[in-house]
Amino acid sequence: MLPVESVETLSEVSLVSARRLPRFRPWYGAQVRLQLQPSLSSADYAYSHRLRVRFAETDAMGIVHHSRYLPYLEEARVEYLRHLGHPYTELRAEGVDYAVLEAFVQYRQPLRFDDVVHVHLRLGAATRATFQMAYLLTVDDDVRATAVTVHGCVTADGRPTRMPAWLLALSD
Amino acid sequence: MLPVESVETLSEVSLVSARRLPRFRPWYGAQVRLQLQPSLSSADYAYSHRLRVRFAETDAMGIVHHSRYLPYLEEARVEYLRHLGHPYTELRAEGVDYAVLEAFVQYRQPLRFDDVVHVHLRLGAATRATFQMAYLLTVDDDVRATAVTVHGCVTADGRPTRMPAWLLALSD
Amino acid sequence: MLPVESVETLSEVSLVSARRLPRFRPWYGAQVRLQLQPSLSSADYAYSHRLRVRFAETDAMGIVHHSRYLPYLEEARVEYLRHLGHPYTELRAEGVDYAVLEAFVQYRQPLRFDDVVHVHLRLGAATRATFQMAYLLTVDDDVRATAVTVHGCVTADGRPTRMPAWLLALSD
Amino acid sequence: MLPVESVETLSEVSLVSARRLPRFRPWYGAQVRLQLQPSLSSADYAYSHRLRVRFAETDAMGIVHHSRYLPYLEEARVEYLRHLGHPYTELRAEGVDYAVLEAFVQYRQPLRFDDVVHVHLRLGAATRATFQMAYLLTVDDDVRATAVTVHGCVTADGRPTRMPAWLLALSD
Repeated sequence: MLPVESVETLSEVSLVSARRLPRFRPWYGAQVRLQLQPSLSSADYAYSHRLRVRFAETDAMGIVHHSRYLPYLEEARVEYLRHLGHPYTELRAEGVDYAVLEAFVQYRQPLRFDDVVHVHLRLGAATRATFQMAYLLTVDDDVRATAVTVHGCVTADGRPTRMPAWLLALSD
Repeated sequence: MLPVESVETLSEVSLVSARRLPRFRPWYGAQVRLQLQPSLSSADYAYSHRLRVRFAETDAMGIVHHSRYLPYLEEARVEYLRHLGHPYTELRAEGVDYAVLEAFVQYRQPLRFDDVVHVHLRLGAATRATFQMAYLLTVDDDVRATAVTVHGCVTADGRPTRMPAWLLALSD
Repeated sequence: MLPVESVETLSEVSLVSARRLPRFRPWYGAQVRLQLQPSLSSADYAYSHRLRVRFAETDAMGIVHHSRYLPYLEEARVEYLRHLGHPYTELRAEGVDYAVLEAFVQYRQPLRFDDVVHVHLRLGAATRATFQMAYLLTVDDDVRATAVTVHGCVTADGRPTRMPAWLLALSD
Repeated sequence: MLPVESVETLSEVSLVSARRLPRFRPWYGAQVRLQLQPSLSSADYAYSHRLRVRFAETDAMGIVHHSRYLPYLEEARVEYLRHLGHPYTELRAEGVDYAVLEAFVQYRQPLRFDDVVHVHLRLGAATRATFQMAYLLTVDDDVRATAVTVHGCVTADGRPTRMPAWLLALSD
């Protein structure tokens, strides 16, 4: 059972034509669509990263501000890449970045100051230039949020580039 | 033409049973789904808010970090409510909050330091306890991002409550 | 050898009169002055907390944005209180907050994405209602920043209150 | 009456020797000291920038998080430079950055969501490679905070460089 059920991503055609456009143009007008269904079971995820909520991440509602989940997902991705033997700093040193093309978060129950959050994640569908990741956030095995991000491999000057083979091999 | 084409939200049933659950429980397990298609034409939006990118919002890729778009959307919502004569501070003083249930952002072209961004927004579909907003972010009439957020009206202790009539009246 | 050499803080007089003023008024006009000299030797600090720089914390100069150091200091304080057996969540549950009255940071060398930072800290001078903390930030034993924060114990509605005895006992 | 009463900054000697050290080394060990006394009267400031507090900038104490003041100061500096006819984007395009060497904030009364804040600022003392700025933050003419920042002019690869003549001419 896939956490991400069905995905339409950048077509080959749009990627080819995109290469003639200026920096980051490729995604302009792209028909990226997600049908998101990240699993609610942590057993369906390949990796888990633990972090603790900072006070600075809360807001006047007394809960973690919704914008603060995205750096949590990013931190988990970075740790996952390190775990896979491909630290993000090395990728960046080689001139490859994983630009975020889309992000979707479903906030199911709030996170609070000092909560210990487990960010479970797995690589979902991939094309030659994009990949998706699904996330489950839990506190004490209690579901707090799910999320999906879509990434494009880009060079230092923002042009789309092929995904590393090792990353493609890990995808669904 | 609707910016948000089709939406399934919290069912009445889940809302009723949710009332017996502790704080913020209502959304746990809720089957909220978006089919997102915010219009790329600013003419399709009801309101526009202008802001300027801060240096603190950029990241080491030289562009605005993807998490920083969500506060932009929030700032635009707050200004829209003020424009409608219902400042968010008054709503909060009355014990009503608009919790964010879902957020989706499509990053089409990057934003950079000092860019003047227009956040166009409109109210999309609404139910008795939730509403959606669609967004278009432009710089010099150039599309940079689109987004959708789903909100639930909650009381100060996190229980879902009916939407104000004036808000319901504005929805599609 | 003290990391904080000499400190003038809120006088008793201003604190007494402050109690009659509305929420948070106490600090208005207060003559708080620091002469800051946090030690550059990690051996002079009571506690050390380790954290890793997130990509989201960098800016377009390719380094950690200067505003991002303050949450690092806060995270280290929270861990120090936990280490002392007085978790901040408990203090907050008892209605006590440690409001930040002043913060000073000296940026000596930049922090970068993925750096593992050690935040060394110690309690400095304390009065009956305020205390100071000194910090040293290192990466691989290399000094990156020093900092001092001044805190006031306040009740949930913002009035100054006496420091817990255990905290006073720890101060210089 | 000067907002910044007395300042000792990087000595010529340390700057000269610093040039032989690697990126950002110059400040390592530098004896920068502030004696801070920003004026509490807005009439003593050269420029004022208006901004509104975002909900995302509040924390679970219901007030603006203390780390969020630094981006406010930065935003005001950027607008001041634009007002002077020297937009920061142009300076950056010419390869000059104003690295933050020190920051000091005195939090006198809290800021809250939706507050309209006036950030008053003025250039303080300057040397050939550093300058200081003093700030007063007010809401409805009520003092909320004062601050001082110390900046160093650096090239794109982090070496100290001379301040532009127009900036030096503006200093005390």
